Amino acid sequence: MTQPSPAWLDAAAVENRMKRVDAVAAMRDLFEAHGQGRVAQPPQVLTLLPDSRGDFITYSGVLAEDGVFGVKVSPYVITPSGGKVTATTMLLGLETGQPLLFCDSLALTTERTAATTALAVDLLAQSDAANLAIIGSGPIALAHLRHVLPLRPWRRIRIHSRNISAKQEILEARLGELRPVPEIVNDCSRAVADADVVLLCTSSGTPVLSMELIRPGMLVTSISTNVARAHEIPPEALTRMNVYCDDRSTTPLIAGEMVLASENGWSRDDIRGDLGELACGKAQAPSAGRATFFRSMGLGIEDVKMALEIHRVNSHAS
Amino acid sequence: MTQPSPAWLDAAAVENRMKRVDAVAAMRDLFEAHGQGRVAQPPQVLTLLPDSRGDFITYSGVLAEDGVFGVKVSPYVITPSGGKVTATTMLLGLETGQPLLFCDSLALTTERTAATTALAVDLLAQSDAANLAIIGSGPIALAHLRHVLPLRPWRRIRIHSRNISAKQEILEARLGELRPVPEIVNDCSRAVADADVVLLCTSSGTPVLSMELIRPGMLVTSISTNVARAHEIPPEALTRMNVYCDDRSTTPLIAGEMVLASENGWSRDDIRGDLGELACGKAQAPSAGRATFFRSMGLGIEDVKMALEIHRVNSHAS
Repeated sequence: MTQPSPAWLDAAAVENRMKRVDAVAAMRDLFEAHGQGRVAQPPQVLTLLPDSRGDFITYSGVLAEDGVFGVKVSPYVITPSGGKVTATTMLLGLETGQPLLFCDSLALTTERTAATTALAVDLLAQSDAANLAIIGSGPIALAHLRHVLPLRPWRRIRIHSRNISAKQEILEARLGELRPVPEIVNDCSRAVADADVVLLCTSSGTPVLSMELIRPGMLVTSISTNVARAHEIPPEALTRMNVYCDDRSTTPLIAGEMVLASENGWSRDDIRGDLGELACGKAQAPSAGRATFFRSMGLGIEDVKMALEIHRVNSHAS
Repeated sequence: MTQPSPAWLDAAAVENRMKRVDAVAAMRDLFEAHGQGRVAQPPQVLTLLPDSRGDFITYSGVLAEDGVFGVKVSPYVITPSGGKVTATTMLLGLETGQPLLFCDSLALTTERTAATTALAVDLLAQSDAANLAIIGSGPIALAHLRHVLPLRPWRRIRIHSRNISAKQEILEARLGELRPVPEIVNDCSRAVADADVVLLCTSSGTPVLSMELIRPGMLVTSISTNVARAHEIPPEALTRMNVYCDDRSTTPLIAGEMVLASENGWSRDDIRGDLGELACGKAQAPSAGRATFFRSMGLGIEDVKMALEIHRVNSHAS
């Protein structure tokens, strides 16, 4: 009758278990379930902290077949020494309603964000895509690189971010063992010049790619930030692109470029498919004469899936 | 630099600590802060589980001065053996964004619900209220009785619920030591006949008090259930009563009788005060020629406050 006590896993314990999780495979499994209507994804909820002390976002989701649901709380707290993002997830059993696991989920959030983009790249990029560009050089950008690297026979990888020259040595040391060795590029337009795939991994609230850099045949992915109306491409680009997103029922309501484009005649009905539809082969393929855009906001179901993977690692451990 | 690990408290541990918490005093402190705008109370969020397997409600709240915020997840899971409600709360620090405590909060929910009603009774009932009626005989009803008992010099207490005769012996054994000894009454109209205060503590989705039982001068409190449009008094009674609630920004949007009355001309602007305003002395007193109604839906800030009290008990323990 007694429930086993749920574990608390701090950041170090989660990082340790994460090494044994295939995040892209987990996201593929998740979005196949999503495309078949076997998950429930409520909208994320933003709450402002009083006195301009920051905010917190609550992400939740239900994975019916896995028999779990959960909630991630991700605060952005402003302290005298600056702003700080944290994340904590509660995983619960669908049969019992009882908690199974509590875990720090900052690293899991980076991981699921990058793995979701990687899944989209796998489903949307041309099979012979050879040139990869990554805009951004923080932990999320490097996680993107790690997950996207095995997906195509890349011949050239270029990385650019604002002030990247200041990080040149650190990045070279960190990336030098990859093949092909990523080039660190000071100029954004040079980084994306003949890229087949461009991964935008910035926290920018305004476009980092201008219209003229977006060419037909190019796949551009974007994560942006949770700042209201934040966007990494010009909103007007949507009308000229094949547009996809992670979840068509929630993302168009909050993704900055989609909200802004909606005010100028673009419609969420113009989204060719979401990641669930793509994973199930139900979405229209990109039309060749246009660039393709994949936007993710990050979903509670991804957080629940990652927490479940971390939970399962333990029971599978030798 | 290392954060202390947050504790997990199961139901037994919580029950044990709850004995050292003054829930009504905690709610008074909370609603004074609420009335002064020092808390943030987002709306509760209901998510349906797929395949009619139940639902879960997420309650959240921020207590700025206490330096905490939190989220309670309360699922209603339907299993072959019936429906089951559970509740789990995550308490986090506002400065760090890190979790402080995870706890089972089913008993805390009962406690905060009853303590909130008791605070409303203390703030709204006439000082010489003598006759108390309680409709309902489950754990929430008994918690109401426990918290309301010390607030007025009650001369008579009557308890009624559907099928109460089947529980007569158990209730008599349980309540026999109280003074005055509560009378167990089979007939609802007799229970409330000359009551000054009527506490509705049922899970009924339809009125348990008819219009003719609601007399001027009577205070009626209601908690109802989370079932859509559930209500314990006839919606049309609102236009004839002094109406108060726990939180004017969220409760009128979901309380069944308020939603239904709104469709027939009653306005949420007719609410004379919420519990924050009452606790700060900012609300209009009830007009004497009418009955008075206090409706609570249960608030995330109450759940966060109770989790904080439980968290503090430990540091104060000898």
